[in-house]
Amino acid sequence: MDIKVTKNPNPQPKPDENNLGFGLTYTDHMFLMDYNREEGWHNARIVPFGPLPIHPAAVVLHYATEVFEGLKAYRTADGAVQLFRPIENVRRMNNSAERMCLPTLDEDDAMQAILEFVKLEEDFVPHKDGTSLYIRPYMFASEANLGLHGIKEAVFAIIASPSGSYYAEGINPVSIMIETEDVRAVRGGTGFAKCGGNYACSTRAGERAEKLGYSQVLWLDGVHQKYVEEVGSMNVMFKINGKIITPDLIGTVLPGITRKSILEVLREEGYEIEERRISVDEIIEALENGELEEAWGCGTAAVISPVGKLAYNGKVYVINDCKIGELTQHLYDTLTGIQWGKLPDTHNWIVKL
Amino acid sequence: MDIKVTKNPNPQPKPDENNLGFGLTYTDHMFLMDYNREEGWHNARIVPFGPLPIHPAAVVLHYATEVFEGLKAYRTADGAVQLFRPIENVRRMNNSAERMCLPTLDEDDAMQAILEFVKLEEDFVPHKDGTSLYIRPYMFASEANLGLHGIKEAVFAIIASPSGSYYAEGINPVSIMIETEDVRAVRGGTGFAKCGGNYACSTRAGERAEKLGYSQVLWLDGVHQKYVEEVGSMNVMFKINGKIITPDLIGTVLPGITRKSILEVLREEGYEIEERRISVDEIIEALENGELEEAWGCGTAAVISPVGKLAYNGKVYVINDCKIGELTQHLYDTLTGIQWGKLPDTHNWIVKL
Repeated sequence: MDIKVTKNPNPQPKPDENNLGFGLTYTDHMFLMDYNREEGWHNARIVPFGPLPIHPAAVVLHYATEVFEGLKAYRTADGAVQLFRPIENVRRMNNSAERMCLPTLDEDDAMQAILEFVKLEEDFVPHKDGTSLYIRPYMFASEANLGLHGIKEAVFAIIASPSGSYYAEGINPVSIMIETEDVRAVRGGTGFAKCGGNYACSTRAGERAEKLGYSQVLWLDGVHQKYVEEVGSMNVMFKINGKIITPDLIGTVLPGITRKSILEVLREEGYEIEERRISVDEIIEALENGELEEAWGCGTAAVISPVGKLAYNGKVYVINDCKIGELTQHLYDTLTGIQWGKLPDTHNWIVKL
Repeated sequence: MDIKVTKNPNPQPKPDENNLGFGLTYTDHMFLMDYNREEGWHNARIVPFGPLPIHPAAVVLHYATEVFEGLKAYRTADGAVQLFRPIENVRRMNNSAERMCLPTLDEDDAMQAILEFVKLEEDFVPHKDGTSLYIRPYMFASEANLGLHGIKEAVFAIIASPSGSYYAEGINPVSIMIETEDVRAVRGGTGFAKCGGNYACSTRAGERAEKLGYSQVLWLDGVHQKYVEEVGSMNVMFKINGKIITPDLIGTVLPGITRKSILEVLREEGYEIEERRISVDEIIEALENGELEEAWGCGTAAVISPVGKLAYNGKVYVINDCKIGELTQHLYDTLTGIQWGKLPDTHNWIVKL
């Protein structure tokens, strides 16, 4: 694939690495590629970062035909830049696109787009411990069409944002509220897809939880409102009596790349893993019996987010004295060690620029 | 509210009324208004129709925080232009916005925006029988924010498209497939909101049905996949043994304005109406017993869409010999009669420009 590059004539100064936050600044460029039925994907280009001119009747603004991905570029100690399992993002994006009836991408083209784009923006990958360049590939239906009839035009875009350490102030276990009213996904829906609608639907419960002093909600399944699915926008895992239990991927749960990587590490280390439905009653029972040893969310942004408190029906349960558990810490160290190049990449997960 | 008007210096010729279709052309202008937390809604303006410059990290492109409405402006025999229950659209849009954590609109301001905008575009309201000006108010989160934390900026927009008669070739009953795999909505989700995600989620089943020769799918509920909810993007009603049965509004079904209007007409005319859960088994039994007399979808676009065939688990059932039923036709004539000013507006539903 030939990517036409138009350099930004007004490059901005790199942001202060001590105050990056998340998603506050963007790099100098963006990658764009167009799709229509006649030409397929075409006009791959890197252009100066700036507003996208979108038709007021574009499908994406009305019918939410949009999918996205999130991954990071990491700066290693020797100054090099590397990515973590980017092909997994490309494949998941294609799965999401199929669910939403958007066109899929050629895997090689999508990988090339990500790599060439990050290469151009390499200087935006920060150096400070725990910082990274957050990369956001996304795709949306761009044609003017209020009639809801088959996607004929789409845009694939990649933008990037230098991001601070998720744990600049140390890893503090979070307080989570089990959500008993709103539902994120149901079988036959879009739960497994990284599509906008899943997030729009989740906002209200998140905001309600935040007002009550909780960081996130724990989602229950849509059919029974009984089985655990995700925590906020992360996958969730529990260590109960030495065993690792995590919801299985039955279509309502996002197939997380961090989730997959953690399970691979745990399997190698000999842990017993159960990917299955786990009811909130089983969790509460394990909490009351003192058998729930550790619980954590996992995803690209935080890598690992230990759960310190779990609220359910007005009662608050404390996990591991609200301290990060031994295994949680070990998994965090392992994953971040590989990502930032401090540990050897024995799984062939790393792609160097 | 003060609406600043910037006239389009290049007005286009009005489109040919014989070939309008749906959503193919737009009027010369669009209404826009901005929201931020400091100023609330501000900068109400009508400007030349054209691309919206949207930030590549705008929430709407990633997290689908968007809601919309659809209504029509009708040309009466005396050349005047009128709307049908527009305040209902404004109120539903606010309900949708609340579900998605978008800011709500002042009802009077929203009504003023619709009326002033349509007044300016009055010449685009076509004259031919059954034609109308389709009006699309919509709202979306516009701020650059990949972090999913509370909506701080939004846009409210109105565009309009001259549209042909839905039944230019006469009212032909449609063939519908009962969808047993994909699910549109579940309690605790967003089914009652007119938000993009509901439509994005529905596309796959609609496309599958179309490939099999069906116009739409009949959606079943998300919990049991057993109770009827909607047909395509319309509400659905059945006449069984003289009684009218339609799914009740329990949060998963869109509260249709056409639905509401039809129920009011039917009540006045003395029909027995049951708003309740109705299972697909009950429908099939009524079909097999010959008790299902008529079935129709209802919504703004088609007003009434008679169902002629219903496919379920490989079997195809015919309703009323695949002809439009007497009551279906009567309801169509009544609603369209009021909308186009051929029948007296005894319900105070009409707003004249």
